[in-house]
Amino acid sequence: MPDSARFLRACRREPVDQVPVWYMRQAGRYQPEYRKLREQHSLLEICRNPRLCAEVTRLPVEQIGVDAAILFSDITIVFEPMGIRCDIREHVGPVIDNPVRTRADVERLRPLEPAKDLPYVLESVALLRSQLPVPLIGFAGGPFTLASYLVEGGPSRDYVRTKQLMYSDPVTWHRLMDLLADAAARFLAAQVQAGAAAVQVFDSWVGSLAPADFRQAVLPAMQRLFGELQKLSVPLIYFGVATGELLALMGESGATVIGVDWRVPIRTARARIGRPMAIQGNLDPALLFAPWPEIEKRARAILDEGLEEPGFIFNLGHGVIHHQPPVAVSTLQRLTRFVHDYSREQLQSAAKEVPSR
Amino acid sequence: MPDSARFLRACRREPVDQVPVWYMRQAGRYQPEYRKLREQHSLLEICRNPRLCAEVTRLPVEQIGVDAAILFSDITIVFEPMGIRCDIREHVGPVIDNPVRTRADVERLRPLEPAKDLPYVLESVALLRSQLPVPLIGFAGGPFTLASYLVEGGPSRDYVRTKQLMYSDPVTWHRLMDLLADAAARFLAAQVQAGAAAVQVFDSWVGSLAPADFRQAVLPAMQRLFGELQKLSVPLIYFGVATGELLALMGESGATVIGVDWRVPIRTARARIGRPMAIQGNLDPALLFAPWPEIEKRARAILDEGLEEPGFIFNLGHGVIHHQPPVAVSTLQRLTRFVHDYSREQLQSAAKEVPSR
Repeated sequence: MPDSARFLRACRREPVDQVPVWYMRQAGRYQPEYRKLREQHSLLEICRNPRLCAEVTRLPVEQIGVDAAILFSDITIVFEPMGIRCDIREHVGPVIDNPVRTRADVERLRPLEPAKDLPYVLESVALLRSQLPVPLIGFAGGPFTLASYLVEGGPSRDYVRTKQLMYSDPVTWHRLMDLLADAAARFLAAQVQAGAAAVQVFDSWVGSLAPADFRQAVLPAMQRLFGELQKLSVPLIYFGVATGELLALMGESGATVIGVDWRVPIRTARARIGRPMAIQGNLDPALLFAPWPEIEKRARAILDEGLEEPGFIFNLGHGVIHHQPPVAVSTLQRLTRFVHDYSREQLQSAAKEVPSR
Repeated sequence: MPDSARFLRACRREPVDQVPVWYMRQAGRYQPEYRKLREQHSLLEICRNPRLCAEVTRLPVEQIGVDAAILFSDITIVFEPMGIRCDIREHVGPVIDNPVRTRADVERLRPLEPAKDLPYVLESVALLRSQLPVPLIGFAGGPFTLASYLVEGGPSRDYVRTKQLMYSDPVTWHRLMDLLADAAARFLAAQVQAGAAAVQVFDSWVGSLAPADFRQAVLPAMQRLFGELQKLSVPLIYFGVATGELLALMGESGATVIGVDWRVPIRTARARIGRPMAIQGNLDPALLFAPWPEIEKRARAILDEGLEEPGFIFNLGHGVIHHQPPVAVSTLQRLTRFVHDYSREQLQSAAKEVPSR
């Protein structure tokens, strides 16, 4: 049963006929069509070409039957217009020529002007709006995660330089976080104006912080970011990995939906957040490589907890993993169907049990 | 005030004059003496040479004033005698020529016989027993973390192959976990017989598992491991990273002390464990690169919660980070002194407040 607003209703904690599903990195290397495109084009080339970007973004909707599309993008796309030379290297990740480590480096960053700096992204969104049968989710990186790349100059295991700046020069740190929060807010607002029906802030590495550090060093920027977006009245999703101890604080960020990784059971996540918010998650992406009965068992356990309260969106606990051999497209098709069918049955039988509601 | 049993008393939740301190990877690259040794010898060469191993193990006790020594070792040291060709590569980590991925691979593993296979380790322990003014902590890797290296063939970000084996062939998986648990139990028992006064199981990557997976796939092996060691009546420390959601289950493992990473406040960790156990942790190792006032502030916050109940050992939330420029030896000296002084004052003033106790 296609229902174009199912995802948005779940974000707003309104009744749904079945639990909506989408997958982080649902457009990616596991799809033969995507791999073929990548033989000709780099990731950023696809992001910068509205026709290709729309094609890649649409594919999982058509192929897997998900209830929302996520704009195909990369969190580092904002760097170049801000004055940062960033290259995404195979098997490494983003590598930055001119890392940001001093007050002067931060002051040299140019504020993002999405319409001027990233017109192709907004064109992609507009194109997708006219093509997609489901809502499009806008895409931006979280200030901490963006800062970690800018300061480290690339991927990191320990975030030593990032935390060093955070601890040793809080004025510069907060200036950097505000700049990145403003960039993300403007970028997401422009995506909404162009047609995105919701947005997600990908703050993958923020879970490397202890709660006291998150509160002091990151939460103000997140409140600034989401505060700026609230007037747009679209769902605001905030996602990070290993954020179990940050959930209560993430709930104070102004986001309306919290994305959780696979470590935290949904019931626990709701209890930690401690306020009525929609929850998105959280199948371990490594499970997609397991035999189907295991996948189904874990998906059912997640749904059983997810359905205990309104406002649940099924997703992975992090993006689809690129691995050899890749996840089978048929696995994601089957999982989507299972989530839809199982949750519909559960919701129907719950409705029968309480006919007066 | 040197007190050779302070660490052991805290492990047993007995009264102490001040909070004991040691640091994971307290022997390492940040020490000029260690760097000099490493110019001549590989990590495994040091582990295999009792004189060098004892020298490296002793150094932080003499230099930093910690209350316990941790045997200088590497979790992969058990692999070669079990029939695995493992090489520790600079900037990469352990790399394994013949990964363990099938039932046949698991059956080919040889059970560890510590006295025959790793006599030099036991010699190091015996040597240290006669040399050290503080207790020595024995060292072994946790079955899940060892398995992750064996199955992946090296370090991993996602543990896809490991989890694949775990989900797709539980019989082989449990056989592997039992073998590794037995190897760790025998190795640690032999270290205790040779003179170690406590042991720590380093299960760094076990926090990549959701609680349901830990319970099903890892907890039985941990109970087997710690069950085997309980008759030795020494403190049994169980440590992993990002284990916030696993703490209650880790408390069921038979360990007597739980080591927690920096993400989980000590008070939260105690509440999650839900039974009277000693806790060890948990300063973010990245903080050692911060200015002193920040380090002191965070250490004080940790101690304030740590002192709320008996049984607290101050440590980092993971090992000392190797970085350029390295952590200053003087920083760890100062931190050790601060923990000792601050906790002694707190304990003394608490004793004065309740003179009848």
